[in-house]
Amino acid sequence: MGFKLTILGFNAAIPTAFANPTAQILTVDEKPYLIDCGEGTQIQLRKAKIKFSRIKTIFISHLHGDHVYGLVGLISTLELLGRKKPLQIFGPKGIKQFINAQLELTASYRNIELIFHELESTESEKIYEDKRIEVFTIPLIHRVYTNGFLFKERQKSKKLNIDAIKEQPEIQVCDYENIKAGKDFTLSNGKVIKNHTLTFDAKKSCSYAFCSDTSYNESMIPMIENVDLLYHEATFKDDLKDLAKLTGHSTAKEAAEIAQKAEVKNLILGHFSNRYSNPKEVYEEAKSIFPNTVWLNQLDSFEMD
Amino acid sequence: MGFKLTILGFNAAIPTAFANPTAQILTVDEKPYLIDCGEGTQIQLRKAKIKFSRIKTIFISHLHGDHVYGLVGLISTLELLGRKKPLQIFGPKGIKQFINAQLELTASYRNIELIFHELESTESEKIYEDKRIEVFTIPLIHRVYTNGFLFKERQKSKKLNIDAIKEQPEIQVCDYENIKAGKDFTLSNGKVIKNHTLTFDAKKSCSYAFCSDTSYNESMIPMIENVDLLYHEATFKDDLKDLAKLTGHSTAKEAAEIAQKAEVKNLILGHFSNRYSNPKEVYEEAKSIFPNTVWLNQLDSFEMD
Repeated sequence: MGFKLTILGFNAAIPTAFANPTAQILTVDEKPYLIDCGEGTQIQLRKAKIKFSRIKTIFISHLHGDHVYGLVGLISTLELLGRKKPLQIFGPKGIKQFINAQLELTASYRNIELIFHELESTESEKIYEDKRIEVFTIPLIHRVYTNGFLFKERQKSKKLNIDAIKEQPEIQVCDYENIKAGKDFTLSNGKVIKNHTLTFDAKKSCSYAFCSDTSYNESMIPMIENVDLLYHEATFKDDLKDLAKLTGHSTAKEAAEIAQKAEVKNLILGHFSNRYSNPKEVYEEAKSIFPNTVWLNQLDSFEMD
Repeated sequence: MGFKLTILGFNAAIPTAFANPTAQILTVDEKPYLIDCGEGTQIQLRKAKIKFSRIKTIFISHLHGDHVYGLVGLISTLELLGRKKPLQIFGPKGIKQFINAQLELTASYRNIELIFHELESTESEKIYEDKRIEVFTIPLIHRVYTNGFLFKERQKSKKLNIDAIKEQPEIQVCDYENIKAGKDFTLSNGKVIKNHTLTFDAKKSCSYAFCSDTSYNESMIPMIENVDLLYHEATFKDDLKDLAKLTGHSTAKEAAEIAQKAEVKNLILGHFSNRYSNPKEVYEEAKSIFPNTVWLNQLDSFEMD
């Protein structure tokens, strides 16, 4: 199955002609999950050729405009496209009023059931699960209440060792699901065939941690240890670390240090201040500390398997 | 001085990868006036290289999302860029709550004084004037309360006929302003020199009428007669005139008929339904009826002098 992350916008507060505010799509088994939704996200979704109608779940980190001003436009477009299925929206307390007030004042169509899950806890909690993934909050330190999100692929089932199974004529096709789930098989004579002799280990599940916006914060490390991919904001380079601290943001060096301490497999950055006309220089700073820092342009994707 | 109109977005409700919702800039003597502000307008302003800081006045036709979802993002960006000057916003009753609620819920910076002028009248009224222009509402017929806007350049002063003036040694430089304003000059012997012998006629003032969104509505004609440029929405082609009527919109044929009856000098269209992958076909329909229909792509400009 695997995860595929697509960057829709990687800029901080002010969008430019070529850089959008924060928005990402995590695709799991063709199902897209939207993470943050700055202004213009629906246009970026079109450019990335992601089908709007498949989005059922949206995760909003915090109620700053550059993470949420595109949400009402996306919902309106889904209405106009005739969507019928409900839309689940996870975000800080206040997000329901923020969206509903806009929809009411603009006399928008209201056929989609919007299911808001307003978050208030300052401790990590599991907020969502379906047959593919589980999602946990990662409490962040910013100027307003903010959560990152940890996306974990559900435990994959084991693969059958068909050659070993064929040596046991008593095992029928209808037994396969139990064996893939890890159960031993008991023959009619009472002998137990251990599961590990009938299966290969399941592939490791994917994990992706989204952490924006946040000050340098080591308390997130236990939650993001060993993830396949960490997105950590890097609004500034390290020469502006005082400004980062003052504004509740991080530098590229700090992002790299978190990645290093959490021993993540790969790191990507974003939320670049628009003082950097070439944000790759922010990436270079992190890469010099954490070599598995990956550069992704807007509309680029990263696959985890 | 003259008027220059720049199209920022010409699409109807749903933006696409290449077509934005309604927004235009009217520039008069380097001063930009923003008309409507769909999602992504601030990005289009950057692409058009229009300086944000110079925008002091914004006119919003109606509170449908595709005309107003970009406004809060633009205001937030102006705040982040350190703007100090007030911003005047003209729009339907409700616009103040629409903007303030969003700014409050997203904990936005609030240094700019926002001066809202909420409109409720269903009759045309003068709503704005400065030393360059006067702006009048054009009541439109749509699903919600909607105004178009008529922008009229203030009466230009006459030009001095320097040769004729030099023949009258009693006329001093300090008299020029009165003469340019149309006054006669009385000599010390009591003889009156008629103004028309001392001046050339002023150039005709420019006028631009913005009419979106609206059903076919002949009652706007007296207000827009002879304007240099009429923008009239043309959401559909004429084969969908029933749908246009049902949704409070117009067809290209109807827009051309209004232009013809009002004897405007030039017509441009917009608010194209995204069923038209090539909206030029909408323009062709109008041009076959009203030959002075002008095609403008997004970011194209039209100059009136």
